[in-house]
Amino acid sequence: MPNVNSDSLKVRLFVDAPLEADLHVEVNEAQAHYLIHVMRLAAGDLLAVFNGRDGEWRAVVERMGKRSCVLRLASPERAQTYAPDLWMLFAPIKRAALGYLVQKATELGVSRLQPVRTARTIATRVNEERLRANMVEGAEQSGRLCVPELAPFQDLSAVMGAWDETRKVMFCDESGDDAGAPWGGMRGGADPVGEVLAREKPGPWAMLIGPEGGFSWQERQDLRALSFVVPVSLGPRIMRADTAALAALSVWQSILGDWSG
Amino acid sequence: MPNVNSDSLKVRLFVDAPLEADLHVEVNEAQAHYLIHVMRLAAGDLLAVFNGRDGEWRAVVERMGKRSCVLRLASPERAQTYAPDLWMLFAPIKRAALGYLVQKATELGVSRLQPVRTARTIATRVNEERLRANMVEGAEQSGRLCVPELAPFQDLSAVMGAWDETRKVMFCDESGDDAGAPWGGMRGGADPVGEVLAREKPGPWAMLIGPEGGFSWQERQDLRALSFVVPVSLGPRIMRADTAALAALSVWQSILGDWSG
Repeated sequence: MPNVNSDSLKVRLFVDAPLEADLHVEVNEAQAHYLIHVMRLAAGDLLAVFNGRDGEWRAVVERMGKRSCVLRLASPERAQTYAPDLWMLFAPIKRAALGYLVQKATELGVSRLQPVRTARTIATRVNEERLRANMVEGAEQSGRLCVPELAPFQDLSAVMGAWDETRKVMFCDESGDDAGAPWGGMRGGADPVGEVLAREKPGPWAMLIGPEGGFSWQERQDLRALSFVVPVSLGPRIMRADTAALAALSVWQSILGDWSG
Repeated sequence: MPNVNSDSLKVRLFVDAPLEADLHVEVNEAQAHYLIHVMRLAAGDLLAVFNGRDGEWRAVVERMGKRSCVLRLASPERAQTYAPDLWMLFAPIKRAALGYLVQKATELGVSRLQPVRTARTIATRVNEERLRANMVEGAEQSGRLCVPELAPFQDLSAVMGAWDETRKVMFCDESGDDAGAPWGGMRGGADPVGEVLAREKPGPWAMLIGPEGGFSWQERQDLRALSFVVPVSLGPRIMRADTAALAALSVWQSILGDWSG
């Protein structure tokens, strides 16, 4: 969560409530704990709230109990904005790395997270509640006005089978074990990510990140056969799945996303 | 550490010893534990070793004790290569985030890590041994043939005062609290990172990442006055220090580093 300096509007909360002048919002227990015991706010203090659709609002702490806190909405601060239309498809990795990945991906501006089951995915389920908490924390901390959507955990083949072909998929194939593969050479001979994206247009995109053991040869062949899949190379070193994801998101944002001029 | 598939050369170890055919290398106790109990290698198994100067070698497990392991160097696998000449100057952040940052920066190909003390840096010392372990792990896992150098923890002003002006410094100013600052506007009105780097040339570079509370106004003014400092913007969201570092490294690699074509 953000630091408080002189400006307590740096305290930002995502709330699931309509935002309109003079409405009251009762925050949930975890948020009350955060406001009272971590940020040490008192009645009359200001903070910022957002709900993903009504922009950012200045709110006042109206009253506090031991475990409860009611805010009054004062005035609008910023109009609603949205992250670029960029999805991240990822095979769930180890718990600590996954929380980190989801929070960082939120800071880097993804609009939707889609966990996918691949041949080498070990996880059998995804803790959606924890992922949502990571996403909310990333949104609060980064000044976003929207929390990414979380799609249900599905088989990669099902997701690709139902894909809208107007959305391109950046395929980051970091497994590095393809000596002798039909597509040949290290990293499948994909072109460097910067070159590939410089040839592409902004619009709906997704990026696909594999599990710790990489994609299977069959998966890689199937993916490369899809017209909307764009393989990219992320350089000569082998990266962990979460590193590759953050690197790919960053380069996409700088070329096709909202970091570009 | 890497997964073992069919190919046990995926086990990679950094060793501090000369590498030459038929030499024997006794690995340290932690590495012996890793080879015996984590990777479950046995006498006769193959692995890859590197020392940062003699390339990568194929080695054979010659003998194992309970806590010791001796390797015999068999044959050279890859000639020595180096990461691009990219330094990362960073204010030490919280312990868990710092280990993560250092390991990821190694995967992303930095050549030297320089911890710096800034006005808002809380850490008074840096655990060099732990950082080196993170760097070695990052190098082993990513297929690098060199471990980044670690420079001693110094004041930012001392580092900048002794700077070689031929090395440019990408200044990632993510504090976002500069409304009313002399340089004006959010993020100091720096141009987008992709645009800025497209105007620059490859060569010796460094990136500078602040502490969790950001740089002070005075620091930011001093930095912006230096001819070799290049401020960049990383988009409309506020990122944590470690996220900003990984994003900036990725974009640099894709434009000026070894991910470019």
